[in-house]
Amino acid sequence: MEKKDGFVLACCQIKGGYADKQKSVAAAEDALRRAASGGADMAVLPEMWDCPYENRFFFEYGEPEGGPVFTKMSALARELGMYIVAGSIPETEDGRVYNTCFVFGRDGEFLAKHRKVHLFDIDVPGQICFKESDTFSPGEQITTFDTEYCKVGVGICYDIRFPEMFRKMTLDGCLLAVLPGAFNMTTGPAHWEMSVRMRALDNQMYVAGCAPARDHDAFYRAFGNSCVADPWGTVVAKTNENPGVIFADIDFAQIRKIREQLPLLKHRRPEIY
Amino acid sequence: MEKKDGFVLACCQIKGGYADKQKSVAAAEDALRRAASGGADMAVLPEMWDCPYENRFFFEYGEPEGGPVFTKMSALARELGMYIVAGSIPETEDGRVYNTCFVFGRDGEFLAKHRKVHLFDIDVPGQICFKESDTFSPGEQITTFDTEYCKVGVGICYDIRFPEMFRKMTLDGCLLAVLPGAFNMTTGPAHWEMSVRMRALDNQMYVAGCAPARDHDAFYRAFGNSCVADPWGTVVAKTNENPGVIFADIDFAQIRKIREQLPLLKHRRPEIY
Repeated sequence: MEKKDGFVLACCQIKGGYADKQKSVAAAEDALRRAASGGADMAVLPEMWDCPYENRFFFEYGEPEGGPVFTKMSALARELGMYIVAGSIPETEDGRVYNTCFVFGRDGEFLAKHRKVHLFDIDVPGQICFKESDTFSPGEQITTFDTEYCKVGVGICYDIRFPEMFRKMTLDGCLLAVLPGAFNMTTGPAHWEMSVRMRALDNQMYVAGCAPARDHDAFYRAFGNSCVADPWGTVVAKTNENPGVIFADIDFAQIRKIREQLPLLKHRRPEIY
Repeated sequence: MEKKDGFVLACCQIKGGYADKQKSVAAAEDALRRAASGGADMAVLPEMWDCPYENRFFFEYGEPEGGPVFTKMSALARELGMYIVAGSIPETEDGRVYNTCFVFGRDGEFLAKHRKVHLFDIDVPGQICFKESDTFSPGEQITTFDTEYCKVGVGICYDIRFPEMFRKMTLDGCLLAVLPGAFNMTTGPAHWEMSVRMRALDNQMYVAGCAPARDHDAFYRAFGNSCVADPWGTVVAKTNENPGVIFADIDFAQIRKIREQLPLLKHRRPEIY
């Protein structure tokens, strides 16, 4: 494939997770259309955007690969001529449910799916207790997909906690990692932006974290604050807790410059780790 | 060894690197005495504190293991009854020079030495160009040492850029990593504190970065800003660019609490990395 020297990425920070799934789908469609109008070559949706973020709803709202939301996202990718990293939705298969991100190419073709590998179990007394592993089954692999621009890695939310995963994407040649994620009001202010920045800095790549907008009435209140960090660890696009679409230039010249000035990846000493 | 539930760590942010090495040694001794007076069980000195930070001086100021600065630090550890992580100094051996951190126990016993594994080569046009690898030879291993409190990992400056090293220390059982480091005026503001915080957060351990105070007349201007981060990634002690000694409680109860509430280390999936 011809390699271009950059492209435009959009993070669609929508308020989803409505009881009425069609309302969430409409919000996603609206944001994706705004991303395309704004010139995005690739758009990302947040984690678990078509389902209330509670264990008891994941099976009910789930659908198998090729289901109605999958089909809708594929059709939008084709219509808009834009890559869609379709956030995550509950995916059912063989009586199990996964936290899954489907990815579609410009022709609507199904490129990849990532099933969240690290399930989020937290128990901070008085603040938050949530155990994804009560319901979800974990994914079993790291996910990347090819584009005419570069290889792209996909993680979901808690996956960002594990530096090994982003290092592996980088060593596999990814220049961008996209991460639908829904950090909460405890871990969000403490860790969200720093995590996005640090994975980008360590790996001298772009990292985009796409969060849901905050819903103060929801059981699980998301932090929002979608952001994109460049290979120097600098935030190049960000927003607050409200719905919105943000755009970032994914600039391969910037990656080359940083990797030449401070050749971290060359300086690794894998023989001693 | 009896395990205690915490101890007091001091970072001695001295202005060193004087042309007259004895002046640097006097500054280190003064700061170490202040650390001990303040109740420190362990004190850390900065990177390359007894030598001007320029390639042409490293051989001239170097000494072998057991040399005069080594002996002085051992004597101070014994006299003060305090662990000393003696920052780094140029260590000569077999015609080579290393960026080496010697560590001494409460009885002055030589516990470990870490030779900087990742040599710092940077070239940001118009800002900074520095190539340690022109002079230094690299270390070949990750360094840890045992205390009655916990196992402690030692890195030097640029070593912090490599998450693999701190992960390995953690998996080896370290609850604290100490890092004499001399980030500069380009990388310091951009990356220093975030790097210390993120290694601590990812590994749910304490990380202490001990920098030289800033010398505006030096060839290599250090950023200063020594800091200590706790296992939640929160800065629990820090200073500015001036000389000073900062103290931090290394609190094992805090490590246990964080690791129980958010069991990152248990959630690793090494089989897929």
